[in-house]
Amino acid sequence: MKRNISPVYYGDYLQLDKILSAQSLQSTRYGEPAHDEMLFVIVHQVYELWFKQVLHELNSVIDAFAQDSIPDQALISVVHRLNRIIQIQQLMNDQISVMETMTPQQFLAFRDYLVPASGFQSIQFKRLEISLGLKREFRIDFDKQSFYSRLKDADRELLEGLEAKPSLFDLVDEWLARMPLLKFNDFDFWKYYQQATDTMLSDDRQTIVTNTTLSDTEREQELRDWQSTRDNFDALFMQENYNKLREQGKFRLSHKAMLAALFIKQYSEEPIFNLPFQVITALTEIDEKLTIWRYRHAMMVQRMLGTKIGTGGSSGHHYLKKTTESNRIFLDFFNMATFLLPKSMLPPLPDAISRYLGFYLSQGKS
Amino acid sequence: MKRNISPVYYGDYLQLDKILSAQSLQSTRYGEPAHDEMLFVIVHQVYELWFKQVLHELNSVIDAFAQDSIPDQALISVVHRLNRIIQIQQLMNDQISVMETMTPQQFLAFRDYLVPASGFQSIQFKRLEISLGLKREFRIDFDKQSFYSRLKDADRELLEGLEAKPSLFDLVDEWLARMPLLKFNDFDFWKYYQQATDTMLSDDRQTIVTNTTLSDTEREQELRDWQSTRDNFDALFMQENYNKLREQGKFRLSHKAMLAALFIKQYSEEPIFNLPFQVITALTEIDEKLTIWRYRHAMMVQRMLGTKIGTGGSSGHHYLKKTTESNRIFLDFFNMATFLLPKSMLPPLPDAISRYLGFYLSQGKS
Amino acid sequence: MKRNISPVYYGDYLQLDKILSAQSLQSTRYGEPAHDEMLFVIVHQVYELWFKQVLHELNSVIDAFAQDSIPDQALISVVHRLNRIIQIQQLMNDQISVMETMTPQQFLAFRDYLVPASGFQSIQFKRLEISLGLKREFRIDFDKQSFYSRLKDADRELLEGLEAKPSLFDLVDEWLARMPLLKFNDFDFWKYYQQATDTMLSDDRQTIVTNTTLSDTEREQELRDWQSTRDNFDALFMQENYNKLREQGKFRLSHKAMLAALFIKQYSEEPIFNLPFQVITALTEIDEKLTIWRYRHAMMVQRMLGTKIGTGGSSGHHYLKKTTESNRIFLDFFNMATFLLPKSMLPPLPDAISRYLGFYLSQGKS
Amino acid sequence: MKRNISPVYYGDYLQLDKILSAQSLQSTRYGEPAHDEMLFVIVHQVYELWFKQVLHELNSVIDAFAQDSIPDQALISVVHRLNRIIQIQQLMNDQISVMETMTPQQFLAFRDYLVPASGFQSIQFKRLEISLGLKREFRIDFDKQSFYSRLKDADRELLEGLEAKPSLFDLVDEWLARMPLLKFNDFDFWKYYQQATDTMLSDDRQTIVTNTTLSDTEREQELRDWQSTRDNFDALFMQENYNKLREQGKFRLSHKAMLAALFIKQYSEEPIFNLPFQVITALTEIDEKLTIWRYRHAMMVQRMLGTKIGTGGSSGHHYLKKTTESNRIFLDFFNMATFLLPKSMLPPLPDAISRYLGFYLSQGKS
Repeated sequence: MKRNISPVYYGDYLQLDKILSAQSLQSTRYGEPAHDEMLFVIVHQVYELWFKQVLHELNSVIDAFAQDSIPDQALISVVHRLNRIIQIQQLMNDQISVMETMTPQQFLAFRDYLVPASGFQSIQFKRLEISLGLKREFRIDFDKQSFYSRLKDADRELLEGLEAKPSLFDLVDEWLARMPLLKFNDFDFWKYYQQATDTMLSDDRQTIVTNTTLSDTEREQELRDWQSTRDNFDALFMQENYNKLREQGKFRLSHKAMLAALFIKQYSEEPIFNLPFQVITALTEIDEKLTIWRYRHAMMVQRMLGTKIGTGGSSGHHYLKKTTESNRIFLDFFNMATFLLPKSMLPPLPDAISRYLGFYLSQGKS
Repeated sequence: MKRNISPVYYGDYLQLDKILSAQSLQSTRYGEPAHDEMLFVIVHQVYELWFKQVLHELNSVIDAFAQDSIPDQALISVVHRLNRIIQIQQLMNDQISVMETMTPQQFLAFRDYLVPASGFQSIQFKRLEISLGLKREFRIDFDKQSFYSRLKDADRELLEGLEAKPSLFDLVDEWLARMPLLKFNDFDFWKYYQQATDTMLSDDRQTIVTNTTLSDTEREQELRDWQSTRDNFDALFMQENYNKLREQGKFRLSHKAMLAALFIKQYSEEPIFNLPFQVITALTEIDEKLTIWRYRHAMMVQRMLGTKIGTGGSSGHHYLKKTTESNRIFLDFFNMATFLLPKSMLPPLPDAISRYLGFYLSQGKS
Repeated sequence: MKRNISPVYYGDYLQLDKILSAQSLQSTRYGEPAHDEMLFVIVHQVYELWFKQVLHELNSVIDAFAQDSIPDQALISVVHRLNRIIQIQQLMNDQISVMETMTPQQFLAFRDYLVPASGFQSIQFKRLEISLGLKREFRIDFDKQSFYSRLKDADRELLEGLEAKPSLFDLVDEWLARMPLLKFNDFDFWKYYQQATDTMLSDDRQTIVTNTTLSDTEREQELRDWQSTRDNFDALFMQENYNKLREQGKFRLSHKAMLAALFIKQYSEEPIFNLPFQVITALTEIDEKLTIWRYRHAMMVQRMLGTKIGTGGSSGHHYLKKTTESNRIFLDFFNMATFLLPKSMLPPLPDAISRYLGFYLSQGKS
Repeated sequence: MKRNISPVYYGDYLQLDKILSAQSLQSTRYGEPAHDEMLFVIVHQVYELWFKQVLHELNSVIDAFAQDSIPDQALISVVHRLNRIIQIQQLMNDQISVMETMTPQQFLAFRDYLVPASGFQSIQFKRLEISLGLKREFRIDFDKQSFYSRLKDADRELLEGLEAKPSLFDLVDEWLARMPLLKFNDFDFWKYYQQATDTMLSDDRQTIVTNTTLSDTEREQELRDWQSTRDNFDALFMQENYNKLREQGKFRLSHKAMLAALFIKQYSEEPIFNLPFQVITALTEIDEKLTIWRYRHAMMVQRMLGTKIGTGGSSGHHYLKKTTESNRIFLDFFNMATFLLPKSMLPPLPDAISRYLGFYLSQGKS
C-alpha cells in the first residue's frame, strides 16, 4: 500500500459527473423527445471511449516500433497490446447488434435534428485509420476530396499533422525490411524457393487443365487467374517487376518487407520467428476485424436508411461498402498466402541462420 | 427535414469534450504512470454508460407497468425495450474478456492508488438492482449491513428513496396477480391440473424407485428431492402452504401471480398469451444474463486478486460468488418449470376463455 | 412418465458410433498425417449438422406458409422457429474464428489431397439457399453455369426438384400480397402517403443543395442519388413503373407485397401487425446473418489461400465476395427503409381498419 | 499437387451419409413426433464433435508434455493448440443459447422417452475431464459414487484405464517442478520476496484497520481473511506447511511447481518466460471457460426443468452448480494472484539467470 494516497471515491475517480451528464438529446431540445435517441447517443459515446483506448494502445505500439532497436521484451508487450485491441474490436463489432435494436422508424423520429452531423466527423476514428496506415493517398475518392472539408479547423489540422508522421504500417514495413533474410552464406533460400514454386504452379495449371467439371469459359478464366498468380510470383523474385505492380496498387509492402514477412510465415514455428509471427498475425486480425466492422456498419446503415441520404448529406451505405474493399491496410498479409509453400516443400532452416537471426533480432538496427 | 434546426457537429452533439477528458489516471497523478490504468478507467466508464442506457429503458418499462391498464401496444413496446436490455447485457458480459486482457501484475501497478474505491459504489448499478427488485430485504448479509455506509450522503438518500418505490418485480407481480385466471365457469383448470400432476409425480417416483443404476444412498436423496417437489406442488394448490414456503424464501412471487405465470407458460402458444409470455421470457433472460455477469465478474476478480483483499477493503470474489446465488430477482420463472405439464396432458383452452381473457387483457384493471 | 419405453443409453440415442467414426483423414490415408486436417473435417461436419437443423426449421416454416390460412398460432410458431435459425446462424458465423485458428501453412499440409472437392458441393447449403428463395435465375453467372455440373446425378436431381417448388420467398410474397391493405373505405392511406413523401423528398433535396461542405462533383452525385430515390418513390405509386424496375432487378417483391410490407413496417407498433412485423424482422435478420457469413467466409478463404486456386479448381474469395452482393434474398426489406416516413408524418390507423385487418388476418385467404 | 490422388467428393470426404442419418427421434419411434427433439439431438451431436476435436488437440499436448524435454518449438505448438481449444470452448459456451431456444414445454413433449439417458454418460466429456486432470479423487461425492455405475462395461473400462495415466495437470506440474528456479548463486529471490510480502501484508492489514466504512463485524471478518492470506504466504515459504494445506485441498500444485509458476508470472515479460507464461495463461483460460460452461449449463437445466428430476433420475441443476465450485483443475493459477507482488517491488532478473534458464529450458530434463 502506498502511503499518503488521498481516499478515492468510485464516482469521482471515473468522473461520472462528466460522463453521465453528456447526453442531451436534440429531440428533447426541439420539444419532441424521442425515447430512442438516448441509445443513439450512448452507442456513439461508447464507441468513442473504445477508440480512445485503442489509440492509447496503438500509440504505445507505434512508439515501440519507432525505436532503433526493438528487443524481444518490447515485442512481447506489442503483441499483448495488439491482442487487446483485437478483443476490443470484437466487442465493437458485436455492438452493432445493439444499435440494430433501433428500428428505422425509431431512428426517423429524430434523424432530422442531426443534420449535417456525420460519423465521418469522428476525429478519433480518423486518427485510428491514419495511425494504422490509411493515409490520404490510399483513401477512396469520396474520402479524399471531401472528407477534410467537413471538419472544424482545429480537427483538420490535427489530422493533417498526423498524416505527416510515420504510421504503424510504415514502421512495420521498415522493421521487416531491416531483417537480413535475403542472403545467407551457404543457404540460398530464395533460389530453392523459386524452384519449389515453379513445381507448385505447374501442378496447379495441370489441375485446371484436367478439371473436367469446368466449362470452356470457366477454364479460360481460371487460366487467366493462374497467369496472374504466375506474374505475382515472378514479381516476387524480381524487384523491378514487384515495384511496378506495387505502383499499380497490387502490393503495398516494400519488396524487402514482403520477402521478410513471407520468410517469417514460412518458418513461423521456429522459436526465433515466434514473436514476429505473432505480430503479423495480430495485424492481420486487426485488419480483418476492422473490415468486418465496416461491412456490418454498412449493412446496418442500409437497414436503417435504405437508399435515403444520410444526415451528413451523402448516401451512406454504398460509400461504406466501397471502403471495405479499398480501405485495407495490411491486405498483403492476406494475399501473401498466395506465395506460401507447404512445409514439406521447404528446406529446414540451418542452425547458423537461427543463431544469426537471433543475434540480429535482439540487437536491432545496425 | 425540420426547418430552423441549427447545424450539428458530431463532436459537439456527443459532448466529446466531456467524454474524452474524463480519464485522469491516479498512477500519473502520483508520478508512476501505469499504462494499463487507462483500460481500467475506460472499461468502467463504458459500463456506466451502458448502465445509464439500461436504466433509461428499464424506467420506461416500469412506467408502463405502473399504469392501471397496459394495452397491447404498450406491451409490444415493453417487450422491445426488454429485448434491447438483453442485447446490452450480452455485450456487458462479453466485455469482461476485455478486462481480462489485463494481467494481475498490470493491475497491481496501480491498484494501491484506488483505495478505498470499490465497484460497490456504482450508484447506477445499485439503482438497476433496486429498480429490478433487489431491495434491501433480499440482499445477502454483507450487502445489507455495510453497503450503504460506503456511500456519500446524496447517493445514499437517492437509493433509499428508490427502495420506497415499487420495483419492476413488484409491478409485474401485481400485473400477473390481476389476471383473472383462477376460475372459469365450466372449466376448472386447476382441478384438472392437480389430477394431472398427481399422475406425473407418481410416475417420477416410480422412475426413481426402479432406477437400478442408483446406489441406496442416492436413491434416498432422490426420494427426498422428490418429496420436496411434491410439497411444492401441494403448496401450489393451497394458498396457506404457499405463503409459508414464500416466507421461508422458497418463492418470491405472490400466490396469484405464480398461478397466472404458470397458466401463461402452459398456454404460451395461444395468441392471447403471446405478449405476456414474451414479457416473462425476457425477464427470465435478463435475470439469467445478470447472474452470468455476476459469475464471470467473480471469476475475473479471483483471477486478478486471488484471495487478496479488494481496494474497497473486502475479499471480493467470495462475496461476488454468493451474490450469484442470492441476488436473483425472477428466480421463480426458472423454478416454475417444476410445475409445467407436457402439452399432451393439458386440456385445450375453451374459446370462451380466450374471449374473456382477450377482453380483460385489453381493458386492464377493473 | 410413459410406460413401456425401452431404457435409453446416451451414446446409442445420439448414434455416436456413426458420428464419431466419420472422420477419416486423407492425409493419413496417403501416409502423411496432418494434425490439422481433423479440425477441417470436424468444422465442416458441424456446419452440416447445423444445416440439417436449419432445414428442419425452415421446412416447417415453409409448410406453415403453404397453408391457405395462417392463423396467429401458426405465426407465433413461425416466429419462434425463425428466431431459432438466427441463433444458429450467430453460432455459425462465430465458428469461422475456430477455422481461422488454422494457419495457411497448416492447411497447405493436406489441401492437395482434397482435389477437386469443394464447399460448393454441400447439398444441404444449396437446399437452404434454394428453399429460402435463391433460385437459379438469381444466382450470379459463375454459379448458374457450372454449379450443377459439379454434382453427382442424384444430388443434382434433388436440387432441380427443389427449384420447381415454391420457396419461402415466394410464399411470403404471396402472403403479403394477399393482405387487403391497398384501399379502405374512408381512409386513402396511399394518397396521404404520396403527399407526405413529396414533402420529405423536397426537404432532402434542399439539404443537398444547401450543404456547403459538398464539392460540386459531390453535389452532382448526391443529386443523381436523390433522383434515383425520387424514381423509386414514383414506382411505388405506379405499378407499371414498379414492374419495370423489378424486371431490372431493383426490386424482387411483387408490387402488392411491397406495399403490404411497407404498411406493416409503418404501423409495426399496432398489435394487429405485431406478428407480421416480427416475421419481416426475422427474415431481414436471417438475410443479414447469411450475408455476413458469406463475407467472413470470403475473408477467411483469402487469408488461407490468397489468390491461389481452391481445391475445387476456382479462385475462391473473389467469387465468394461477389455472392455477398448478389445472393441476397430479402434485400427489399432492407432497401424498404428508403420509403419509410417518420411516425409523426403518418395518419393514425382508423379503428375500423384494425377490426377489418384483424378479421382478415385471423381468417386467411378468402 | 500430389499425383495419383483419387478425386474427392465433398459429401463422401465428410462421410455425410453417416453424419446426416444419425438423427432418429424417440418421439417419432413412439408415434408422437416432437418437432423440437431434432434440436436436442443435433445440439448434443455437435457437442460430441467438438469434444472429439478438443480431445484431438489435448492428447497431442499431453504427448508433448510427456517427453523428457520440451523444446521451444514444441511449446509454440502447445500454445497454438491450447488457444484453439479456447476458441472452441467459446463456441460451446455460446451454443447454450441455441439450446435455450427450446422452451420447457417443448422439452417436456419428449423428455419421457429419454429415460434413463443422461449427459453424465458422455464418455468423451469424461475423457476430457480426466485427461485435463479431474480424476476420481477430485470429484464431488455424487460423481465419485455413482458415476461409473451408469456406464456400459466397455465405457467404464476405457475411463478407468485413463484414470491410471498421467493427466495434463500431472505433466504440467512435473514440467514446472523441474524448472530450477529456487536458488541461484548470488540472487536469493525467495528471501527478497519474503521481505517484500511482509511489507505488503502489513500494509493490507493497515488498510483494513483504518477503513472507517467497515462495521466491527465486517472488520473482524476481514481480519480473519487477512490471517488466512498470511497463513498462505507462510506456507509458500515452508514446504511442510504448504503440504499440510495441500492435503486439506487448499492447493493442488506441488510446492515446487507452485513456486515455479509464481516466478514465471512475476517475470512474465522476460523473453525466457514468454512461452511458459502463455502456457499458464491458456490453461487458466481453459479452466475458466469450462467453469463458465458448467455454470451456464446448470442455469439452462434449471430453466428447463426447475427442480424436476432429470431423465437420468437425478435433480440436475444443484449437482451441476456444485461442480462449478469443486471440479476446478487449474484453480491454483487463479488463486496464485494472491501471492503476486507489483513489479516495482521485484528485483530485476540478473542476466546470469536468463542465460541459465535459457540453457535449461532449451535442454529439458537433466
